[in-house]
Amino acid sequence: MTPIYFDHAASTPLKENALRVLCNATKKAYANPSSTHLLGAELAEKIESCRQVILKALKAEDDYRVVFTSSATEANNMVYHGLETSAQNHVVYCEADHPSITEPAKQMSSKWSALPHRLAADGTVSLQLISEKLSQHTRLVVLTHVNNHSGIHNPVDAHARDVKTLFPTVHIHVDASQSFGKLPLDLSHGNIDSVALSAHKMGGPKGISALILKKTTIEKSQFKPIFLGGGHEYGLRASTLAFPLILSWAAAFADPHEVSASIEKVSELNKFLRTFISTNHPDILFPFNFEKTSPYILTLIIPGISTDILMRHLSEEGICVSSSSACSSRIQGTNTVFTALGLEERFHKNVLRLSFAETSSTEEVSLFCKSFSKINRALSHLRGT
Amino acid sequence: MTPIYFDHAASTPLKENALRVLCNATKKAYANPSSTHLLGAELAEKIESCRQVILKALKAEDDYRVVFTSSATEANNMVYHGLETSAQNHVVYCEADHPSITEPAKQMSSKWSALPHRLAADGTVSLQLISEKLSQHTRLVVLTHVNNHSGIHNPVDAHARDVKTLFPTVHIHVDASQSFGKLPLDLSHGNIDSVALSAHKMGGPKGISALILKKTTIEKSQFKPIFLGGGHEYGLRASTLAFPLILSWAAAFADPHEVSASIEKVSELNKFLRTFISTNHPDILFPFNFEKTSPYILTLIIPGISTDILMRHLSEEGICVSSSSACSSRIQGTNTVFTALGLEERFHKNVLRLSFAETSSTEEVSLFCKSFSKINRALSHLRGT
Repeated sequence: MTPIYFDHAASTPLKENALRVLCNATKKAYANPSSTHLLGAELAEKIESCRQVILKALKAEDDYRVVFTSSATEANNMVYHGLETSAQNHVVYCEADHPSITEPAKQMSSKWSALPHRLAADGTVSLQLISEKLSQHTRLVVLTHVNNHSGIHNPVDAHARDVKTLFPTVHIHVDASQSFGKLPLDLSHGNIDSVALSAHKMGGPKGISALILKKTTIEKSQFKPIFLGGGHEYGLRASTLAFPLILSWAAAFADPHEVSASIEKVSELNKFLRTFISTNHPDILFPFNFEKTSPYILTLIIPGISTDILMRHLSEEGICVSSSSACSSRIQGTNTVFTALGLEERFHKNVLRLSFAETSSTEEVSLFCKSFSKINRALSHLRGT
Repeated sequence: MTPIYFDHAASTPLKENALRVLCNATKKAYANPSSTHLLGAELAEKIESCRQVILKALKAEDDYRVVFTSSATEANNMVYHGLETSAQNHVVYCEADHPSITEPAKQMSSKWSALPHRLAADGTVSLQLISEKLSQHTRLVVLTHVNNHSGIHNPVDAHARDVKTLFPTVHIHVDASQSFGKLPLDLSHGNIDSVALSAHKMGGPKGISALILKKTTIEKSQFKPIFLGGGHEYGLRASTLAFPLILSWAAAFADPHEVSASIEKVSELNKFLRTFISTNHPDILFPFNFEKTSPYILTLIIPGISTDILMRHLSEEGICVSSSSACSSRIQGTNTVFTALGLEERFHKNVLRLSFAETSSTEEVSLFCKSFSKINRALSHLRGT
């Protein structure tokens, strides 16, 4: 049974080109890019081209640098560690953000005072609600481009501009791990100071990601590394560069035209599913508005049916979806993320997230609809209807 | 021209099996191992088997856990960050250690007082010279199993036992990144508290490594993570697990018999080279005794000839060797590592490191000897002889 995989927001298959490059580079390019001999120098040069591919996708060639990391979690954590702080340092973030944003804010209490801002009722970031938390003590504001649970797509560039207008010296960090390579992000206006990216959520390999940092932040030595050692990555991240992963990631980039075509295709699938479900299962809720979400993520609430049970049944039909993010699946207790997203507590056990890729097909969607309807009917007794 | 690659200590090609597994797993196993659906759960289970492969190689199945990291540099840094410390915390290490050991010791001055110990005249670690630095304030002792410059192979198990006899609560960390998979290391005696490993120096992929930690250290919550987020890796390292890299690394392990056969083979190559050079180039020095070094590393001093010039000429013949470690190639100024290793300052620009793999052939060694002799003769005018 070929699985129907609608968990692309957790991780997505490598693009064909990226896979070919990974295997080829792993086989042939075995040297250490920091070695000064011919083989090392050759790899170091190719890595520079990969940096340019990434910067170009963000329109950030002039003012930003790429610091390769092992994960977006690392990139997010780097910002909390890296920024120099003095006595009072407030970080404004949101409880609906990824754990790699919320946990450092809360746990690094000797360095940061955590000031979570609320979201608007529709799950979007609200400048007004952020502003309530801003003060002269604010050192860092973290914005999420696309929320990994709700799929809400926030205009981070506009928010960054508005925050900078109020407090020009605040560092604005954007977590773009769910959006990068899928939805455009333009850094050319210069209001965003750093961005966390993920490769394995856009068709690149696992084990490589990046922190994009403003050149001026690096030049002013305002940013300290976590990993100390061989002085790689502008002195910001010691470690042998994983050349094959970097080259493979760069091979996963599509041109803007293809990115647009994928958005259009995935939007159609998303809309088809929404229509099918609302027509055939009118009790199922769509807590987030299509117009405000990334088409790559579709969140449902299935009142009365525990997602755990539903997922078990879907699994038996070979369907892979998610009830929470993979990174939150081990976190116990009250679901603070769902609360922050505005989901009523009585529905917290009924949330299902479907997430798509450009390779998701109408055939998969049709098969999903068929299985989903069957299971939903079979479980209808749980609903007490 | 096929390069003659004698820089395996910087990075070594993937073993055939590891390459096959990497390509296969990257293609097929695209899910996130933290996802709770069938595909995720399957990967999570396989990762547990990989942990066992690593622990078995260290005879550490009972008392230790594997925390996957992105690099040995990360694993070394984790120890400095992770250990809880109180007012006075001395770390005893050596200036000849890898930068990912020496730099955190020196730069994390708000947490650690750096107490470097000296090496014996032959470049080996001396318990007596370590003991001079030990006190009730010592919280951490870092030992290097095989030094990446000299190749000196230290009996870390005996040293750990002796340090523990003097100060039982000291945390003993071993950097085994140059030795793991090549020379045996046995943790069953329990005196070593943590070990940093590297995959890409033993025929596994770049971008994956591990910190081996005693279960009791984890259970007592004596160890704090650097990366906060999704609570992966026993809560010690948030980040999506790079499944294909982990599976590939596990496929790079050889059984103890094969490890011994490789040691024997590489020892023969090393001895052949030593004999050839001492016979044909009697002015070249071998600063480190064969009996005390890993056969995988051979360090030479070529008096009067700058290694930079020599390496340029060797490069033209397609020969890749090293004058310093890849991780130190960007570090400027006095070579504190060479000083710590007991190399006279007048020779610091004359150090050449050759490093081998089990796949290094007698043919490569013969070709190297031929080219090396030719170049050495051509450059003899520099020597003023």
